[in-house]
Amino acid sequence: MEQRFVMKCGGSTLAALPASFFEDLKGLQERDVKPVIVHGGGPAISETLTKLGIESEFVNGLRKTSDEVLDVVEMVLAGRINKEIVRKIQQSGAKSIGLSGVDGKLIGAKPVANSAEIGFVGDVTDVNVAIIEGIMGMGYIPVIAPIGIDAAGQRYNINADTAAGAVASQLGVERMIVVTDVPGIMKTIDGVKQVLPIVTVEEINAMIASGEIYGGMIPKVRAAIQCIQGNVREVIIVNGDEPGVLSKAVLESGIGTRIVQA
Amino acid sequence: MEQRFVMKCGGSTLAALPASFFEDLKGLQERDVKPVIVHGGGPAISETLTKLGIESEFVNGLRKTSDEVLDVVEMVLAGRINKEIVRKIQQSGAKSIGLSGVDGKLIGAKPVANSAEIGFVGDVTDVNVAIIEGIMGMGYIPVIAPIGIDAAGQRYNINADTAAGAVASQLGVERMIVVTDVPGIMKTIDGVKQVLPIVTVEEINAMIASGEIYGGMIPKVRAAIQCIQGNVREVIIVNGDEPGVLSKAVLESGIGTRIVQA
Amino acid sequence: MEQRFVMKCGGSTLAALPASFFEDLKGLQERDVKPVIVHGGGPAISETLTKLGIESEFVNGLRKTSDEVLDVVEMVLAGRINKEIVRKIQQSGAKSIGLSGVDGKLIGAKPVANSAEIGFVGDVTDVNVAIIEGIMGMGYIPVIAPIGIDAAGQRYNINADTAAGAVASQLGVERMIVVTDVPGIMKTIDGVKQVLPIVTVEEINAMIASGEIYGGMIPKVRAAIQCIQGNVREVIIVNGDEPGVLSKAVLESGIGTRIVQA
Amino acid sequence: MEQRFVMKCGGSTLAALPASFFEDLKGLQERDVKPVIVHGGGPAISETLTKLGIESEFVNGLRKTSDEVLDVVEMVLAGRINKEIVRKIQQSGAKSIGLSGVDGKLIGAKPVANSAEIGFVGDVTDVNVAIIEGIMGMGYIPVIAPIGIDAAGQRYNINADTAAGAVASQLGVERMIVVTDVPGIMKTIDGVKQVLPIVTVEEINAMIASGEIYGGMIPKVRAAIQCIQGNVREVIIVNGDEPGVLSKAVLESGIGTRIVQA
Amino acid sequence: MEQRFVMKCGGSTLAALPASFFEDLKGLQERDVKPVIVHGGGPAISETLTKLGIESEFVNGLRKTSDEVLDVVEMVLAGRINKEIVRKIQQSGAKSIGLSGVDGKLIGAKPVANSAEIGFVGDVTDVNVAIIEGIMGMGYIPVIAPIGIDAAGQRYNINADTAAGAVASQLGVERMIVVTDVPGIMKTIDGVKQVLPIVTVEEINAMIASGEIYGGMIPKVRAAIQCIQGNVREVIIVNGDEPGVLSKAVLESGIGTRIVQA
Amino acid sequence: MEQRFVMKCGGSTLAALPASFFEDLKGLQERDVKPVIVHGGGPAISETLTKLGIESEFVNGLRKTSDEVLDVVEMVLAGRINKEIVRKIQQSGAKSIGLSGVDGKLIGAKPVANSAEIGFVGDVTDVNVAIIEGIMGMGYIPVIAPIGIDAAGQRYNINADTAAGAVASQLGVERMIVVTDVPGIMKTIDGVKQVLPIVTVEEINAMIASGEIYGGMIPKVRAAIQCIQGNVREVIIVNGDEPGVLSKAVLESGIGTRIVQA
Repeated sequence: MEQRFVMKCGGSTLAALPASFFEDLKGLQERDVKPVIVHGGGPAISETLTKLGIESEFVNGLRKTSDEVLDVVEMVLAGRINKEIVRKIQQSGAKSIGLSGVDGKLIGAKPVANSAEIGFVGDVTDVNVAIIEGIMGMGYIPVIAPIGIDAAGQRYNINADTAAGAVASQLGVERMIVVTDVPGIMKTIDGVKQVLPIVTVEEINAMIASGEIYGGMIPKVRAAIQCIQGNVREVIIVNGDEPGVLSKAVLESGIGTRIVQA
Repeated sequence: MEQRFVMKCGGSTLAALPASFFEDLKGLQERDVKPVIVHGGGPAISETLTKLGIESEFVNGLRKTSDEVLDVVEMVLAGRINKEIVRKIQQSGAKSIGLSGVDGKLIGAKPVANSAEIGFVGDVTDVNVAIIEGIMGMGYIPVIAPIGIDAAGQRYNINADTAAGAVASQLGVERMIVVTDVPGIMKTIDGVKQVLPIVTVEEINAMIASGEIYGGMIPKVRAAIQCIQGNVREVIIVNGDEPGVLSKAVLESGIGTRIVQA
Repeated sequence: MEQRFVMKCGGSTLAALPASFFEDLKGLQERDVKPVIVHGGGPAISETLTKLGIESEFVNGLRKTSDEVLDVVEMVLAGRINKEIVRKIQQSGAKSIGLSGVDGKLIGAKPVANSAEIGFVGDVTDVNVAIIEGIMGMGYIPVIAPIGIDAAGQRYNINADTAAGAVASQLGVERMIVVTDVPGIMKTIDGVKQVLPIVTVEEINAMIASGEIYGGMIPKVRAAIQCIQGNVREVIIVNGDEPGVLSKAVLESGIGTRIVQA
Repeated sequence: MEQRFVMKCGGSTLAALPASFFEDLKGLQERDVKPVIVHGGGPAISETLTKLGIESEFVNGLRKTSDEVLDVVEMVLAGRINKEIVRKIQQSGAKSIGLSGVDGKLIGAKPVANSAEIGFVGDVTDVNVAIIEGIMGMGYIPVIAPIGIDAAGQRYNINADTAAGAVASQLGVERMIVVTDVPGIMKTIDGVKQVLPIVTVEEINAMIASGEIYGGMIPKVRAAIQCIQGNVREVIIVNGDEPGVLSKAVLESGIGTRIVQA
Repeated sequence: MEQRFVMKCGGSTLAALPASFFEDLKGLQERDVKPVIVHGGGPAISETLTKLGIESEFVNGLRKTSDEVLDVVEMVLAGRINKEIVRKIQQSGAKSIGLSGVDGKLIGAKPVANSAEIGFVGDVTDVNVAIIEGIMGMGYIPVIAPIGIDAAGQRYNINADTAAGAVASQLGVERMIVVTDVPGIMKTIDGVKQVLPIVTVEEINAMIASGEIYGGMIPKVRAAIQCIQGNVREVIIVNGDEPGVLSKAVLESGIGTRIVQA
Repeated sequence: MEQRFVMKCGGSTLAALPASFFEDLKGLQERDVKPVIVHGGGPAISETLTKLGIESEFVNGLRKTSDEVLDVVEMVLAGRINKEIVRKIQQSGAKSIGLSGVDGKLIGAKPVANSAEIGFVGDVTDVNVAIIEGIMGMGYIPVIAPIGIDAAGQRYNINADTAAGAVASQLGVERMIVVTDVPGIMKTIDGVKQVLPIVTVEEINAMIASGEIYGGMIPKVRAAIQCIQGNVREVIIVNGDEPGVLSKAVLESGIGTRIVQA
């Protein structure tokens, strides 16, 4: 039976994914599991902005997306990161086509509420599912760069987690995978520090409040939670470095931490 | 009756194309004429290389494509120029999806004969026509960035004229359109300087030898001739600035200069 | 009989002028025809600003000339483009001396009306003709960079067309030559697209309104019209690429398009 | 009783250390525990090299340290990272003085065996312990940038792990702390993924071979092992993000993973 | 008998100091004369700001010290110039340790009166003499970069002359040496232009008013006068290029110009 | 009686010349003293090369002049420094025209003996005196940028001292003025350090050997000596900062140090 899944990869995770990850992906495609990938690209964008000498303001930790910054965001996401993933997938033997949310108006968008402050950042208004299904129907894994576009043709920088959640929800996918560089959410139980197999959003908030989740782990779990929207009921945080991680997450169970709505 | 055509746009031409050009394109799509666009991007690539401080060697007037240069070529062609064309087409109301020759191994390639000298520049070995037809079948105008890929996953910079000719030939298209910033090839007849309606490749070579074609016009006609290969029998040089130019070239006749094989 | 003429070359035209152009110029000097050249330099200025990382604002398509931008404009116009033309002329065997409008207060200037918006851009108030005639009297072709200066010693960026028209008018020259990369103004007559030999300013405005002159040709004819001022009665638009173009324009007739006042 | 410890912080870890880390450090100083800090600075060095447009070659994944690169390495390590740590320590109320290995010839060095390939990279030949003890005796926490110097006055880039191990060994310290962004070394035991409290170097090598330690964890444990030299018998890998981590590592036990020689 | 002296070197002077200067310094250390060095770094800071593309505003000839500029000031002063001096001293055989005013809060500071205009520039509030004496007691020449810090941990850019005067005054040193590239203050007496051996501050002001001190000499004498504060009663301006200049200034007399308070 | 003099200004001196210097120059022009100025531009060239990211090799302390470096040398000397001097002269009320040695082939040149090592650096072969006299005859002060050109049209970077000496010699001028930032050559006589009024080249060499001339003064006197060639018999080193310095040097005597051939 055909099985679809949506996977989100952060920009800093992507560069470090081992060849085994892509071989695992190919194995899934052969077993008629159909993946859709939505990717970020933060570090490569920052690096290119620096090299081009474009200064960008930060508002509450978010980069303000001016028109000049947006040009670079699109160029790096759609022209560099997107094609790099497509080539890595193809090198494993699987077939893939990369798209930007602008292509065929794949990701419809509108300005976020505080766009006056942070510039051309968008919320997803609709997903052109027909294109994704068309590409899958032709036998290719769609790889999507999170740029949105509105009716007037204005582009927007879309948070990769938000975009992945919207794509998954519109495709009717209930369980998403978020690929990171940590094995899951950890807790000390009976003096042993260990990975939690399942946790609710509410428990996560309690663990952040108590200090059990701290430091750099906080934005990671928050990003994962952001994927849970619409039809998406749960998100599995996994470590992309771990051999066979996708097969284990999609076909088996007991890897990473499943975050569930309630 | 469905009618296909392949159009090639140079990088310096693209930036200056007026809105009327894209409206004309939309009119064609509505009349069931199916365009495929292959584009260049030279000036934007040079500009980005300069901004990034990447020096590139020139060999006989051709930029040597090192790995570092290739990264920029792909990023600018597939992430900036390609998406800019897609957006301009969509703004006219037509539907479009942009692809790189790497996506789905659309443009198979191998190193050119003098690759030792000029780096990762490629010749086209095959075109994955199924993808182009799939995209057209879904109702979208394919816009193709001329990056090629070989079996080992190595990318190549492909001359846009060569790529356009190969795509047209594999699609079985006999007449291509090359969009430029000149009205065609000119000649003084009876004291009046005028645009030639039709000319053979042989006549062009004679006009270059006699000085009737001179200066910056020489590379333009040479580029057009390069499109004539395989099934492609003739190429029309037109001025993209001219209102209604595509309709006139595809549906009527008497615009620009038709270059024919013999 | 001594014959003077003033010629204006745009910055993008200059880089592409063939050796034949300068040999033609030398032939004229030998026949006691005395040329004065006023040049632009836009693309080289933009390129240098980019390389130096100086961002410049655009107001209605015009670059705002801040003090920092003006330093670069002067350095590139007077130190690079001006000397490059002098060397090319000398390489043909003719004799030439390059000057900036600042030298000997050659081009007196005042701020333009909207200088608050666009910075140090100037209108010409007077031309120190004695210097131009002194240089010509010594047997050298004057090549002039369009920088102006006011009584207080402030420099101004002057539009090259305006400067060329003012220099020609003060020298009492009635017919100027504007060197471009197009063969003249084109019109379709009896189904044949051809170069118009003569046209009035009024007819040009009508052709722009009707769409017969379109796209990139519009700024070219507008620049030429800007040269018609004071004693200057007509301007010939020619293609600098064309062999023997200057001799044909100055001594014969029937090349390019003559634009006349009425 | 006075107790000394040596702590090594990698460059990417440092930027992210929370205020709690430095308060913990101050608490230790008040309890007469005397810390010595040796730091890295890789990402800030790379960022500054990029901003300065200095290209650096990589040999087997190591940056070749040319004279030009060494100037930046010293400037960033001794002038930026070192002083940033000193200020963060002082902001917690503790007292600190920063030194480079060049100051008072604190870190004597010689070229590494393959210096022909990788440039000015050094091995430690001796540590001027008197300076470290002098600074500690005056009541300040020494913070050391790993630049070495030989008898001829030549500087060398020293690996921070090697430098930290040498400093600890010469101070007669047996247990070092390596601050990272992971909780320790993990293993799945009885289906639960957990942090190992203690592990030998030999066991680590077996876990790398078996794939239990994979990906980005491999360089982290290798760096920790590099600290074990001379008098240093064991190294504790801890997560600097974790509240109270230093006190727990120095005064208690049961945090992170202890790596022991045999 | 132990003898201390404080010496101030400007940034442009430092780069040009000959080896003989440092050998002279070593000779003094061997005769139990204890130097303390405070240094500037203007030209190297300007050069690095330029290379990094950081533009900085000037207010009344003073560079406005924004947070971004301050990062570079600290990095260059404490990481490059400071360590370069330490290495040059060590190469002569003397022993030296470099410090920033931030280390151990060596230079306490507060914002200057017009800090709203010129940013993070500071006045010295106190000098942690114990650290300087501790370093001297260990047998090392302290070399101090003039960065100050306030109780809240904010850094300030301190004028090197002000810093040197404050350090000397707090150490109870009455005579300071200012190393420059001129032989002293000159005056024409009986038709012979000669170096004045001694001059009062009042006489200097008169010589500036009369034009006897003019041009680039004015800021040099003003900088020297700025060192006279608190316990410091006089300053000797010497030329660092002159062989044996420090010994002559400290142990003998009759070199350079002594500027005295009254 | 008309009196001509040739003056050489180094690049670092120029930026600092006070307004009084140019007023003095104007006073001379009014008294029918005709100056010719040859200028350098080292620091501005270095600064622009740095800003443009062009690295240049140094051979024995001389910058190797590649084609890319030469482009910048010409642009800065002829387009920036030259015009800045012209404007400063005009601001004083005097009249001036700036020229490059390329204009009218003013400075004929050939490659130096070691051009293989140091690139496009030239020796002067001849000076087109007629142009200088023509400009002076028109009432303007010629300001000359030291770029040379050979018969084939190749440009060369010419040392400003060599160029100034050649121009003076060809104009039949016996005494040149070299403007610097020092009052002349100093010597201690009877315990008083004073400026020597006159000195021979031989005595200078002896003072360098004995250490009486040391450090940064050595290149200054060597540059001045380089001006003594052909008809030039002596050179006066003066401080451009000193009020009325040119009048004193040209019309009176007893300022600076006169260097005489024997």
